[in-house]
Amino acid sequence: MPEPIVFYDIPRRVSMSEVNAWGPNTWKTRYTLNIKGIPYKTVWVEFADIEPISKKIGAAPTSTKPDGSPFYTCPFIYDPNTRIAVSDSVAIARYLDKTYPDTHPLVPKATAALQQAFLRAFEAEILPGKGELFALMMPQSHARLNERSQPYFRRTREAVLGQSLEEAAPRGSEKAKRLWEGVRSGFHAVAEWLKRAEDGGKELFFGGEGIVFADTVVAAFLTWIRLAFGEESEEWKGVLSWDGGRWGKFAEAFRKYEAVDAGSYYAEV
Amino acid sequence: MPEPIVFYDIPRRVSMSEVNAWGPNTWKTRYTLNIKGIPYKTVWVEFADIEPISKKIGAAPTSTKPDGSPFYTCPFIYDPNTRIAVSDSVAIARYLDKTYPDTHPLVPKATAALQQAFLRAFEAEILPGKGELFALMMPQSHARLNERSQPYFRRTREAVLGQSLEEAAPRGSEKAKRLWEGVRSGFHAVAEWLKRAEDGGKELFFGGEGIVFADTVVAAFLTWIRLAFGEESEEWKGVLSWDGGRWGKFAEAFRKYEAVDAGSYYAEV
Repeated sequence: MPEPIVFYDIPRRVSMSEVNAWGPNTWKTRYTLNIKGIPYKTVWVEFADIEPISKKIGAAPTSTKPDGSPFYTCPFIYDPNTRIAVSDSVAIARYLDKTYPDTHPLVPKATAALQQAFLRAFEAEILPGKGELFALMMPQSHARLNERSQPYFRRTREAVLGQSLEEAAPRGSEKAKRLWEGVRSGFHAVAEWLKRAEDGGKELFFGGEGIVFADTVVAAFLTWIRLAFGEESEEWKGVLSWDGGRWGKFAEAFRKYEAVDAGSYYAEV
Repeated sequence: MPEPIVFYDIPRRVSMSEVNAWGPNTWKTRYTLNIKGIPYKTVWVEFADIEPISKKIGAAPTSTKPDGSPFYTCPFIYDPNTRIAVSDSVAIARYLDKTYPDTHPLVPKATAALQQAFLRAFEAEILPGKGELFALMMPQSHARLNERSQPYFRRTREAVLGQSLEEAAPRGSEKAKRLWEGVRSGFHAVAEWLKRAEDGGKELFFGGEGIVFADTVVAAFLTWIRLAFGEESEEWKGVLSWDGGRWGKFAEAFRKYEAVDAGSYYAEV
């Protein structure tokens, strides 16, 4: 039995009965770890601590800021068995496939480059110009963060939106309805890729016979919406009605991979 | 040995030494047939004849026109062995995989939905708003068509471009240079998908170990550029220099699948 992987995730403010994992990017890695059944411990990291902790453990930046300096992001992991740190959700999945070859493969070689293309295609449909889902989700996500992360989150997200979080997509407004219509149409395009793959149109997962990394991406976005608005919200019920209930079935199939380890703890910086 | 598949392709005006296949969409199917080594005969169809011939042999429309009426496109095939007509290049590849299972598979089940996503991602990079490669290619493609197809082609392409073919991207102009820069950057994004798939960055094909349908798409676009501008053109030499010569190697690997059957004939309508 290997030592548990250390998995760095961003917390949200929660009551005792809620999970505090919330962000779509880190959900991809939590699904990855849970599907593979690899033991891990979550370390909760506020936004301001992502860079110093990444540097401390040697996790690489994943892109550059507008000023050209390195940009460090969550998720990242540290594997005490190999003493290797890995950042970026798809790189983490590839690393775990390679290092723990007896676990469920999420990026089989024959699909690796196609899955990179999938990430671009999914982004093109679900985050077009960051205008739709982004605008809908940012106010909800902000409201659920711990106080320490809120100012950073507000500043950076309002810069992208070009308006305040409060103006972006007020719940129930005509504007929000229009934005949801755009998101629905994006998910419909994704459903079409699955439907066209088999003439019968019954494919649930991008892996064909099983789950691949691309599926964890779709599931992560669905879970992001569900947790932000709540199981009983009109918004989530809307999602469940799209594409003949396809996304409800999809989300349901991922429920068993949503466990958050009980032994998680907050990062000490 | 089955009866040859009938493959409907759009001709261009050619000298005796040139191939008359030119369009990126039908090249996908020619590559498909040649990679699989399935015997076929090309029937050359001018634009105006695509709809009547499709209807005659029972090939379905692939989308709808702006007025809502069905839109028939090339490529389409007719398989005399099964008496089935199929349109749309990826549907043709799937049909041939299924009907001739001993041939090289281009849409393995584990990649089918991911390849549909690839088509969206490739389009998002290579034909953004139809502004770049489209504008560069349309004047060249028009000049090489047979006279009968030119008026239709000019009318429909100028409607998309919002300007005349002559204004779209005059060769050697600053505008054309800017558009080529956009295309280069699109192909660079595609190269990144391949490079990120393996840490070594040596993957040539999207199939990982072999060619899949997605690769025929990339090859078809490269061949479209090469045939339109010519092997010795500055434009093609530019493409060969991109991404450390990756696309030159890619195109070279497809040369052996470019045969056009000698027994091709023009459609009688």
